[in-house]
Amino acid sequence: MSPAERLPAPARELLKGDRRALARLISAVEDHDPAALPSLRALYRRTGHARVIGVTGPLGVGKSSLLNALLKRLREQGRRVGIVAVDPSSPFSGGSVLGDRIRIERPPGDDGVFVRSMASRGHTGGVAAATREVCRLLDAYGMDTILVETVGSGQVDVEIREVATTSVVVLVPHLGDEVQSLKAGLFEIADVFCVNKSDLPGAETAAKDLGELLGLGPASSGWRPAVVTTSTKDGTGVDSLWSAIEAHEAYLDRAGLRASQERERLGQEIVGMVAERVARDLRDGIDRDPELAQLLEEVVARRIDPQSAADRLYRDRARRR
Amino acid sequence: MSPAERLPAPARELLKGDRRALARLISAVEDHDPAALPSLRALYRRTGHARVIGVTGPLGVGKSSLLNALLKRLREQGRRVGIVAVDPSSPFSGGSVLGDRIRIERPPGDDGVFVRSMASRGHTGGVAAATREVCRLLDAYGMDTILVETVGSGQVDVEIREVATTSVVVLVPHLGDEVQSLKAGLFEIADVFCVNKSDLPGAETAAKDLGELLGLGPASSGWRPAVVTTSTKDGTGVDSLWSAIEAHEAYLDRAGLRASQERERLGQEIVGMVAERVARDLRDGIDRDPELAQLLEEVVARRIDPQSAADRLYRDRARRR
Repeated sequence: MSPAERLPAPARELLKGDRRALARLISAVEDHDPAALPSLRALYRRTGHARVIGVTGPLGVGKSSLLNALLKRLREQGRRVGIVAVDPSSPFSGGSVLGDRIRIERPPGDDGVFVRSMASRGHTGGVAAATREVCRLLDAYGMDTILVETVGSGQVDVEIREVATTSVVVLVPHLGDEVQSLKAGLFEIADVFCVNKSDLPGAETAAKDLGELLGLGPASSGWRPAVVTTSTKDGTGVDSLWSAIEAHEAYLDRAGLRASQERERLGQEIVGMVAERVARDLRDGIDRDPELAQLLEEVVARRIDPQSAADRLYRDRARRR
Repeated sequence: MSPAERLPAPARELLKGDRRALARLISAVEDHDPAALPSLRALYRRTGHARVIGVTGPLGVGKSSLLNALLKRLREQGRRVGIVAVDPSSPFSGGSVLGDRIRIERPPGDDGVFVRSMASRGHTGGVAAATREVCRLLDAYGMDTILVETVGSGQVDVEIREVATTSVVVLVPHLGDEVQSLKAGLFEIADVFCVNKSDLPGAETAAKDLGELLGLGPASSGWRPAVVTTSTKDGTGVDSLWSAIEAHEAYLDRAGLRASQERERLGQEIVGMVAERVARDLRDGIDRDPELAQLLEEVVARRIDPQSAADRLYRDRARRR
C-alpha cells in the first residue's frame, strides 16, 4: 500500500509545495466545494504539527501591524508561517463587510509565508469549521505556526477558540464606551493579553489594571493569562509577546492539556458533523415527506407544541431506521 | 375533554394573570429547568397572538430611553406590553457582562407591563431558543406587543431575528470607528432604522445618507427598510417609529409572509431540537460506548479523518436503530 499514490492530485501537489494548489484548496473550502473533500480527507493524516495561535481584538487596535511584526520575528527564527484573517461578514449576503481588510504582507518571494483572508459568512459554527480546514491545509503544507486573526466581535472569536490552542486578545490603552462590552466578552477567551500602542499614554496603567484584575480572578485552570505591552511603532514588546505565547503552549504540554483538548475538539467536530447531517435529512423530510409536512402544519395550527413534535420526530427516526 | 383542567398548576396560574407565576416560569426557562416543560408545552396552544418587535443597536445609542418612550405610547393606546432585554453575557461563565443593565421602568401598579432582563449566556442558538420561550410565556399571559432588546453585538442580534417579526436597528448620528463593523453587521437585519438623538448635529444627514444607501440596494424582498429619526429628549419621532413598525407588520400580512415565516421558523425550531438531541446522544456515546471512544482515538491518532468518522457514525446510527 503506497499512500502517496492514492492521494488525489490536488493533495499531492500541495504536499509537493505547490502554492497554487494550496490556494485552490483553500478556496474550495470557502466555497464548500465537495470536489475538495477527497483531498481534505487524505491530507488530514499529514496534519497535527502546526501550532495555531488566535489573535483577536476590536478594529483599530493595530492587529495587522502586530501580526506583521510577529511574522518578521517568526521568519527570522526560520519558522514557516500561515496567516488566516477572518473577516466579519454580512450574515445574510455572506459578503465581506470590511472589504479585503487584511494588510499583512508576504515578503516578496518568501515561500515560508502564506497569507489568506476569508469571510466569516455569519454561519454559526461554520466559521470555526472552515477555519479549522484551512489551518489543516496550511499544516499539511508544512507551516509550523499559524496565526488566525479575528475582529473581536463576539461569537466568531469564541468559535475560533475551538481552533486555536493559544488565544491572544489585543487591546489599546483607551477604548471607547462602545467597545466595553466587546472587551468584556473577550475577557475569558484570552490566554495572553496584549496592550498594544504602548507609546500612547496610559498603556502601563492599563496593563497594570488588567494584571490586577486577572490576579483577582480564579486561576482554576492552572494558567493565569499573561499581560504584555507592545508598540508596533518601534517594535517594543514583540519578543515578550511571542515568549508569552510560547509559555502558554509549553504549559499545555506540561499539564497534558494539549492531548485532552485535541480529543475534546475532535469529538465535538465529529458529533457536530453528524448532527448537521441529521438536521439536513429532517429539513429535506419536511419539504418532501407529507407526514412530516403535516406534523409541521399541526404545530403551526397550535394543535401540537414544538417540543412534542420534536419528540415524535426523534422517536420516528429511531423506529424507521 | 376539558383542556383547562389538564393544565399544570403554573400554567393555570399564569393564565389567570398571576405575575409571580409568569416570573417563575421565565426563570425556569432561563435555568433550563425541566420541571417547567409541561407548562411550556401546555401554554403553546395559547400563543400566536402577540407581535414580537426586536430592537437592537450598540451600547450608548439610547435604546432604553427609546423603549421607555415607546412603552408610554403603547400603554396610552391600551396595549399590553412585555419587554425582554437580552444582556450580552460572558460565553464561559454565563454571567452577565454589563450587570443588570436594563433601565426600563414599569409604571407602578401597571399590570399591563412586564419587564424582564435575561443573560444571553453565549450559547449559540440558545439565546434565540430561550427568548422564544419567554416571548411565548408573555404571549400566553396576554401581552399583545413584545419588545426584545439586544445590544447589537453580532450573532445574538441575528438569532433574535429568528424570534422577532420586525427588527428595528437603532443608531446615532456619529458612531466611533470601533462600531463601524457592528453597524455594517446590523445593516441587513433591519426592517426599520431609527436614528436616535436627532437633537445632535448630523442626524438629518445621517438619516438621509442611510436612506440613499438603502435606496441603492436591492428591494428583492419587497420591503425597503424605513428610516426614522427620534429624540427621546423631547419625544420627537416616537410616533413615526411606531408607525414604521406597524407598516412593516401590515406588509407581512399583506404579502402573506407572516404565515410562511412562522412556518419556516417553527420548522427550524423543531429540526434544531431533534438535531440537538442526536448530538447529545452521540456525546454520551463517546463517553460510554467503547466502540465510539475507539473511533475517536483513531481520529486523534490521525488514522481516520473526522469526516470519515462522522460518515461511519451516521451510517452506524442508521443500522443500529
